[in-house]
Amino acid sequence: MTEFVGVGNMVRWVAATGVEAAVAGIAGYVREDFCRWQSFHKTPRTASHTPFGVIELMPTSDSVTYAFKYVNGHPSNPARGFQTVTAFGALADVSNGYPVFLAEMTLLTALRTAAVSAVAAAALARPDSRRLALIGAGSQAEFQALAMRHALGIDRVTAWDTDPAALVKLARNLGPLGFDVTLAGSGREAVRGADVVTTCTADKALATVLPDAWVEPGMHVNAIGGDCPGKTELDPAILRRAGVFVEYTPQTRVEGEIQALGPDFPVTELWEVLTGRRPGRTSAGQVTVFDSVGFAVEDFSALRYLRDAVRGTPWVERIDLVAEPEDPKDLFGMVTAPSPIGA
Amino acid sequence: MTEFVGVGNMVRWVAATGVEAAVAGIAGYVREDFCRWQSFHKTPRTASHTPFGVIELMPTSDSVTYAFKYVNGHPSNPARGFQTVTAFGALADVSNGYPVFLAEMTLLTALRTAAVSAVAAAALARPDSRRLALIGAGSQAEFQALAMRHALGIDRVTAWDTDPAALVKLARNLGPLGFDVTLAGSGREAVRGADVVTTCTADKALATVLPDAWVEPGMHVNAIGGDCPGKTELDPAILRRAGVFVEYTPQTRVEGEIQALGPDFPVTELWEVLTGRRPGRTSAGQVTVFDSVGFAVEDFSALRYLRDAVRGTPWVERIDLVAEPEDPKDLFGMVTAPSPIGA
Repeated sequence: MTEFVGVGNMVRWVAATGVEAAVAGIAGYVREDFCRWQSFHKTPRTASHTPFGVIELMPTSDSVTYAFKYVNGHPSNPARGFQTVTAFGALADVSNGYPVFLAEMTLLTALRTAAVSAVAAAALARPDSRRLALIGAGSQAEFQALAMRHALGIDRVTAWDTDPAALVKLARNLGPLGFDVTLAGSGREAVRGADVVTTCTADKALATVLPDAWVEPGMHVNAIGGDCPGKTELDPAILRRAGVFVEYTPQTRVEGEIQALGPDFPVTELWEVLTGRRPGRTSAGQVTVFDSVGFAVEDFSALRYLRDAVRGTPWVERIDLVAEPEDPKDLFGMVTAPSPIGA
Repeated sequence: MTEFVGVGNMVRWVAATGVEAAVAGIAGYVREDFCRWQSFHKTPRTASHTPFGVIELMPTSDSVTYAFKYVNGHPSNPARGFQTVTAFGALADVSNGYPVFLAEMTLLTALRTAAVSAVAAAALARPDSRRLALIGAGSQAEFQALAMRHALGIDRVTAWDTDPAALVKLARNLGPLGFDVTLAGSGREAVRGADVVTTCTADKALATVLPDAWVEPGMHVNAIGGDCPGKTELDPAILRRAGVFVEYTPQTRVEGEIQALGPDFPVTELWEVLTGRRPGRTSAGQVTVFDSVGFAVEDFSALRYLRDAVRGTPWVERIDLVAEPEDPKDLFGMVTAPSPIGA
């Protein structure tokens, strides 16, 4: 039997654990896995693009465990009552290929995306950062705020979104958590004076939600929403004057903000900074950009953390995903033996 | 909620339907989907190879439905009490990216592999074929026998396997189904005088389970087991003198029997034969080879058939794989609302 964490159990686990603690826990596993980057079999994700959106499969493995995630991105979904992003994924045993753990990953992806932002910001933002600007107040926004509090101690947030209802929702959710939230009248107003700017918008377009003129010396830009071909958020001029950090270069050159630039545009992979192999921020005045697109190793880390966290709790069920014939060469016997028919 | 067919329900559905009827039903959907080949977004599968075996993801989609399968192949599994191949897969709605159907596919893959062999044999073997030789009496063997009876009316089977226990199992399973089964003392003996030869062995090696000298004029060779780099079954000399038919050329050149030959080695895709675009068998004396590796469109067809077949029956459950927050932009609200904690 395969372990399974469905939506209901995921909600119960997160509610019992607390979002900030869950993000912190996943961030720890992400950091650990990024620090053994060479252990992973890495490949750009497989994407199926349609006029409606994108559906992707994201596999990776080390020598012991294989992981993959199914994830979609459909910007017009919320207008029809659906979420932009849903996901699920699995862990399998490399030695025999059996799937051992299946989980909803809509919520888990929200947690892991925030966890990765936290890992990057802790390594790249100025340690004295005190204010976060959020461009985009959708599904990921609150998770980002908690991630930055975990990484940098930030509790001041200014936010902007073209959808006023999303801003109201953000203030309603963050207020009780001890954040000082300001709803800005424009993107420019939200960004002015901020230390960390997180862009997290859903529009599938070569957009510029952050013009170069708004970016001040020393800012850390955490660019989340530009994550597939034809979908960017930053003015390319920002990239040309910043230190640019990515997850996995071959994938980011296709999907990230740097898709607008040439194949030789210099970038640093985050794992290189975390392991001390290459420098991160080089001065207090430098602009740093984390051009985040989401990479399979992060989902590996998140699934691994979840599996460890729910072990032995009531939040994990078992489902019969793998046939187990008595004789492994007699699969046919399973469907012709009289006993299972009425079972 | 996502529809789910687990192993228990799959066994009950197949037992109630009958293996031959299930293979025939899937074969109908495979033929239908192959005849609209251009409708599909096709890509070679993503494979993760280790010394133990391979784990693959096989996605495809048309404009309405997306499908993918997770499948492993671990030749040393049976010796440790595990199956060589296990699988599961899902269908999703292209318009919003939501997964709508999840199923075990260990049994379903066995059925669909046989169904594809049936579709190919009906198009390529001599219509007067009367005897099937099976090289390999493992998990797929009985399904192959039933597929050839469906496609060609064959009810005589000669079989060979290096594992005597597998041969005994095959005879035990096929006898009651009305087959005239002969257990051969060698591969050569099994193949002599046969009309269709199915090779279906698991060893991950550049093996020759079928030497050229054994292949007689007019034979149809259904080559199933050579399906990943470094894993073949046929003497390449057979391919050079036969008409060679494949599923999806870019994948088969990497994974199939033709991996041993050059990139320009001439092949015909099965859909071209089914649609009358190119000829199949050109004479009664021609040797035809179906170099089958398994392609994502076939799993799409099998999942689509299963979903239609179990609709409204007790063999389909529902699992909570997709989070459905009341406000699609308020995922955070799902994990902080007090109500779900005790639910």
